[in-house]
Amino acid sequence: MAAFADDFLIGLREWLAIPSIGVDPAHHGDVAASAHWLAEALRRDGWPDVRVWDEGPALPAVYACWPAADPDAPTVLVYGHHDVQPVDPVEQWHHPPFEATLVGEELFGRGASDDKGQVAMHLLGLRAHLAATGAQRPAVTVKLFVEGEEESGSPHLTRLLDDHRDDLACDLVVFTDTPLYGRDAPTVCTGQRGVYGAEVVFTGGTSDVHSGRSGGGVPNPATAIARLVAALHDEDGRVRLRDFYADVIEPTEAERADYAALPFDEAVWLANAGGAQGLAGEPGWSTLERVWVRPTAEVNGIHGGYTGPGLKTIVPARASVKLSFRLVPDQRPELVAEALREFVADHTPPGLHAEVIARGDGAPPYAVDISHPAVGAVRDALQAAFDQPVRFSRTGGSGPAALLHGWLGVPVVYLGATLPDDRIHAPNERVVVPLLLRGAEAAALLWRLLPERLS
Amino acid sequence: MAAFADDFLIGLREWLAIPSIGVDPAHHGDVAASAHWLAEALRRDGWPDVRVWDEGPALPAVYACWPAADPDAPTVLVYGHHDVQPVDPVEQWHHPPFEATLVGEELFGRGASDDKGQVAMHLLGLRAHLAATGAQRPAVTVKLFVEGEEESGSPHLTRLLDDHRDDLACDLVVFTDTPLYGRDAPTVCTGQRGVYGAEVVFTGGTSDVHSGRSGGGVPNPATAIARLVAALHDEDGRVRLRDFYADVIEPTEAERADYAALPFDEAVWLANAGGAQGLAGEPGWSTLERVWVRPTAEVNGIHGGYTGPGLKTIVPARASVKLSFRLVPDQRPELVAEALREFVADHTPPGLHAEVIARGDGAPPYAVDISHPAVGAVRDALQAAFDQPVRFSRTGGSGPAALLHGWLGVPVVYLGATLPDDRIHAPNERVVVPLLLRGAEAAALLWRLLPERLS
Repeated sequence: MAAFADDFLIGLREWLAIPSIGVDPAHHGDVAASAHWLAEALRRDGWPDVRVWDEGPALPAVYACWPAADPDAPTVLVYGHHDVQPVDPVEQWHHPPFEATLVGEELFGRGASDDKGQVAMHLLGLRAHLAATGAQRPAVTVKLFVEGEEESGSPHLTRLLDDHRDDLACDLVVFTDTPLYGRDAPTVCTGQRGVYGAEVVFTGGTSDVHSGRSGGGVPNPATAIARLVAALHDEDGRVRLRDFYADVIEPTEAERADYAALPFDEAVWLANAGGAQGLAGEPGWSTLERVWVRPTAEVNGIHGGYTGPGLKTIVPARASVKLSFRLVPDQRPELVAEALREFVADHTPPGLHAEVIARGDGAPPYAVDISHPAVGAVRDALQAAFDQPVRFSRTGGSGPAALLHGWLGVPVVYLGATLPDDRIHAPNERVVVPLLLRGAEAAALLWRLLPERLS
Repeated sequence: MAAFADDFLIGLREWLAIPSIGVDPAHHGDVAASAHWLAEALRRDGWPDVRVWDEGPALPAVYACWPAADPDAPTVLVYGHHDVQPVDPVEQWHHPPFEATLVGEELFGRGASDDKGQVAMHLLGLRAHLAATGAQRPAVTVKLFVEGEEESGSPHLTRLLDDHRDDLACDLVVFTDTPLYGRDAPTVCTGQRGVYGAEVVFTGGTSDVHSGRSGGGVPNPATAIARLVAALHDEDGRVRLRDFYADVIEPTEAERADYAALPFDEAVWLANAGGAQGLAGEPGWSTLERVWVRPTAEVNGIHGGYTGPGLKTIVPARASVKLSFRLVPDQRPELVAEALREFVADHTPPGLHAEVIARGDGAPPYAVDISHPAVGAVRDALQAAFDQPVRFSRTGGSGPAALLHGWLGVPVVYLGATLPDDRIHAPNERVVVPLLLRGAEAAALLWRLLPERLS
């Protein structure tokens, strides 16, 4: 591995210098440049089939395939993305976000962890795999699919999947956009929460009114929106939408035992949770369970009336709340959307007009069956690479795993080697380079294990 | 009266041209100019003792005294103000706000109704009184006290009252900053609600956090602030602060009967209440009672988290709500402040920090005893001037009546001739000129009635 490591770093730093901020149209040229950089790197590595899918409306995605020597070997599709988050507030970065800077073992730069570092890890993994086996071709057919719109919510992913159904056909997806639990506690992630978001707006009159003259005689939309939010949870913090828990699949005892065995430092966890002053959540579940395997309803923003300095004695004409629900298998965003509309209708007081504005279709949750042999293979590969026991974990965030599973009709397993405190989406994003090297080792091993495990 | 009316209008339009916006330091020179204009007008009218109190830190106030012929006659202090509200949004005015424009019977301009028009009404009233009695001196000693900081919440009023205790000594205050109930329903106002305002801030962490990674495991300050607001009222809309209703004095049967007899057009009332779509409020009380004689708790503004376009899946670090309580006799702002602090402490969930920021000391409520002979005199004077029955009303807004009562130790009665739909504090403020002329007639008569009624 060490033989390739210098090369790997030089390449990754080059790639990280391309500001492929997909959500910013001014950077769409950079997204294309990033795709072409990756395609060139893959060709340099010897991948026989490399293509940039730049057909619009999707931002450019990269596809590559390296067929196995054995035509009956399984086909694996590695999913990742090469678009990156914006860098604001840029003044909080200690190094320029697009001049990847190595400090000790840490490589700082936007995209270092999310997700260019992990994609590059797979390029390195395949070189290592071929070197270790001494073969010209991998033990499984490896396909790489690196989209350019993940940070935008993958709006055209289904279209890409549909347009390239044959290219993307596979027996297994290896999803490479999630972290390990911790540096000293490598884990195999087995699922992500889904998400559904919507805004609720209550409107009273056409203008704010004086709280002296009219206050007490008209409904107050801000009070009503507060009551709606207060009614959203019961006293135990459970979400009160109709049938919200009906489809929830609880984690197995084995998973819960693994979560309980993970090191958990409350102070560190709180510090990483924005400096929160205390834990909170649904009784009967640990903090990790609350954020990994339990669904939530969160207020992302609330607004109504006068919010400037001092006081203005008005009854606001309008108040609104932005809500998002994190979902776990087998909850479905469309059912949550329906239940929310009902809930809002039930909590709209007379004299107010209610509007529910959906923010997209949401993303379904996903979890892989931990008894699937591919999960065992990932675990064994990580255990060998990290030379220590590997437990199960999940991530509370959301992504297109369920979508890939649904469209491709195959299981999705997770292989990642980044850390929860890599500050993705924030200033000073970094990746710990030795972890990426171990991740590449794990990938190299995984390709060797899979033919037998999936047979 | 007609003889003076032209003069009156010319003078008032001149005064309204001075943009005495007290809350805007750029207009403090105009506040001084406005005070001096009034002083000159009083001198022109023959008031023997006219002074501008321009001693800082209070903006200039005007004091004048016209002693009665009979040294034993009662002394009346007329209270009003000459500062005006800002004019934003100025583009919504149909006429320039500081070029008083007469359209039919309506005079448009900032301050026309609130409160220069009503102060000018008293100048005219005294001229009419002297003309009607043929005397050189009024039947009561009339003192005029016109402050320049009412729209700023009268922050230095107690200091002025203290510094000029002898000048302001009187047997009765005539408060001239409230409206009639309606053009066809003249009323004598008998009280104003008080007000107490505060902001409550809940803080969790030091920064917003990702609702996927941390959501479900940390308290959400926006949810907590919503629950606080939801808990503020019971199901009947009654305020749940400790002892909130303990000191509330209910209106007499005579008052309630008068309120019930007033014409009430729900559609018109709602249109004037910012186009509200329906009535709401405490069961068992009419709309007029809800805004006149019942206390309230209103959300004036609520804010937390992301409030821009689209969705941002965060748990906010901070959320806040601006609350104001309208109070009725004998509630006390300081007790409400104390009960609010307790209520917030009781509703702060673990892991959040709470802060209660008082917005000033508030204003106590005030109501005059309707059996006081001065109230009867005002009623008789209005009845004579308007030539129709005059009922009792109140106003839901707040002002310094309780403060004047407390410092001067005398009853406060209300004499106003403006209308609730004069659009005070809003674009296109106007006053209906014939009503001001009738108000002046009522004042002229009141000075004649008072010596006997107060003897």
